[in-house]
Amino acid sequence: RHALDDVEPEVVVGVVLAGTFWTAINAAAQDVADLRTPKSPLVLKAQGSFVQGGEVKEAEAGDLGEGAAPGHITINQMYVEYMIPRRATKVPVVMVHGGGLSGKSFETTPDGRMGWDEYFVRHRHPVYNADQVLRARSGFDPTVINRVRAGLLPPTALFNINRTSMEQAWQNFRFGPTFGVPWSDTQFPVESGDEFSQQGVADLSAALPTPNPIYTALSDLATELNGAVLMGHSQSSAFPLYAALTNSAGIKGAIFLETTNPTRCTAFTDQEIAQLATVPILMMFGDHLDQQPAGVLASFNNCKALIDEINAAGGNAQMIWPPDLGIHGNSHMMMLDKNNLQLADLILEWIDENVGKQKVAKR
Amino acid sequence: RHALDDVEPEVVVGVVLAGTFWTAINAAAQDVADLRTPKSPLVLKAQGSFVQGGEVKEAEAGDLGEGAAPGHITINQMYVEYMIPRRATKVPVVMVHGGGLSGKSFETTPDGRMGWDEYFVRHRHPVYNADQVLRARSGFDPTVINRVRAGLLPPTALFNINRTSMEQAWQNFRFGPTFGVPWSDTQFPVESGDEFSQQGVADLSAALPTPNPIYTALSDLATELNGAVLMGHSQSSAFPLYAALTNSAGIKGAIFLETTNPTRCTAFTDQEIAQLATVPILMMFGDHLDQQPAGVLASFNNCKALIDEINAAGGNAQMIWPPDLGIHGNSHMMMLDKNNLQLADLILEWIDENVGKQKVAKR
Repeated sequence: RHALDDVEPEVVVGVVLAGTFWTAINAAAQDVADLRTPKSPLVLKAQGSFVQGGEVKEAEAGDLGEGAAPGHITINQMYVEYMIPRRATKVPVVMVHGGGLSGKSFETTPDGRMGWDEYFVRHRHPVYNADQVLRARSGFDPTVINRVRAGLLPPTALFNINRTSMEQAWQNFRFGPTFGVPWSDTQFPVESGDEFSQQGVADLSAALPTPNPIYTALSDLATELNGAVLMGHSQSSAFPLYAALTNSAGIKGAIFLETTNPTRCTAFTDQEIAQLATVPILMMFGDHLDQQPAGVLASFNNCKALIDEINAAGGNAQMIWPPDLGIHGNSHMMMLDKNNLQLADLILEWIDENVGKQKVAKR
Repeated sequence: RHALDDVEPEVVVGVVLAGTFWTAINAAAQDVADLRTPKSPLVLKAQGSFVQGGEVKEAEAGDLGEGAAPGHITINQMYVEYMIPRRATKVPVVMVHGGGLSGKSFETTPDGRMGWDEYFVRHRHPVYNADQVLRARSGFDPTVINRVRAGLLPPTALFNINRTSMEQAWQNFRFGPTFGVPWSDTQFPVESGDEFSQQGVADLSAALPTPNPIYTALSDLATELNGAVLMGHSQSSAFPLYAALTNSAGIKGAIFLETTNPTRCTAFTDQEIAQLATVPILMMFGDHLDQQPAGVLASFNNCKALIDEINAAGGNAQMIWPPDLGIHGNSHMMMLDKNNLQLADLILEWIDENVGKQKVAKR
């Protein structure tokens, strides 16, 4: 187990809950009662939030709502919440969630256990937890929707919006072979499936400009922090790599967690691979890769090939696949799995060994 | 000044910043550099997030995105982040933000000072900071938008979506008489206007069912906490009152901050006023009420009349208007104003005197 800070986090694994198991939500009394209190207090030098980047846009009459006057708004910004431990001796870590989700992914798990954000803080890393651009607290521009509603644009001008269903999550996130049936060794807290469904949000990625403004927001943030490790998951798995290709000055490491998109690791040119060879890179995938969804096994193999290419170019890239270490049953949502802190330990060790023990950015 | 916890928050007032003053966003280096570190650490017994309430909805093919299979999602839930101080001797406080905003309102101010969430925690109150239903991390259902896009519904089926412009904020939130011109005594950190614009989000309130599911979510949360004070601002100013009318069992106090809607305080029946007389109620408004927007002065007067009616029914309702105490220049966004902690002290004192010193809910 990874060396702990002076404050000891409580590791709660395999709590049995009276969950509602993917049926009608019982909103009455479950959530608060299930929240676990750590054995020791969390001591923070600072905490709060800010909004990174964005640009000012001029909106016409009606763009910002029925009857709204013309005016200016900020678009394409990135909301970030942060916690800095009292003894911040290690490199800051910036976490970015996946599709149909928000920064909630790295907070308290659906069954009320400690999230990775707090666990990393208790291991002396300042943690910055973002909402993707156009997602959740990062907001979005309603102009197109309002113009279609007013008849100024055709319905085809609307952008597609995704929301992950419970059924889709079960299969694509590899909780089990068919909806409602978990793998016998699943690490996902399936009895808290309703709580997981509650944290899904609408995904407006189809409305993003190209390139996604988050690449600059992340690389700028890393620079402002005087160095940070970037961590992406699923939809954002490759964001740390793209951020490094945008400006690697502040990026001390890139952590790529799970993708089911086989092209995610094949889209890099030789020149880009040479650039990625200057950044320590960790990749991690869950278990049951030979099952659905189609694409996850190819993704895993393609990412291993990318690792080989980066290392052949003189880089330091590594795949940690928990089953190789005798750790089985992890899902796509590894930061929420019952052994989420065990996996976090693997990442923390990788940071210690590959990124070094940079002092936290002066504040 | 209100009695402090053993950990002393740093009160930073009137910091002069090299802000961009409502012009093009300079995303490069401002936000992180402006974040203030308190003089003493924040010691938390627990922190994290959960999602309150909601219901399961069955979606048809395509409702959840182009090509999406039918499936179930959760709708109308409420995201809540929380911090519990090590010495949580006082009643929990649930904070709800206003229109076009998110829980960010109660976090770090646009110029990087401590938010009310942390300040209340440092005064031994557990704090629960919500995103309104259909807002930010609480998510929304994209079905109608996707159906209009697919031609299955007419554009008129779309709901109006509001986004507050910089110009609208300046006038409606009473930073000054005309856009870009602050009141000479304004307490709003106008030099950080760009940062305030960054935290605006799309407001889908027009898509809410009736009644707003947040009333039940808030009253359920207060019950689960074994008692809480609810605080609403602007659009949500009356939510604590509606939550109390839904189920007042857990509601130990209701704090109503600022509205510019004159009907917000006139919509209660005699029977409802009798019910509200069972809950301690505090109202607070900013300064410059005789200026724009039209409606704020009438709102203030109507709310004072409601206070009189509640007290005539045997209640304990009170208006604290800072100018009566010699405190001038506060805006609509009082939790972000330069003297935000001075106003927080007034609220903390009101809680101490009117709600008592309930022990925090057992966890």
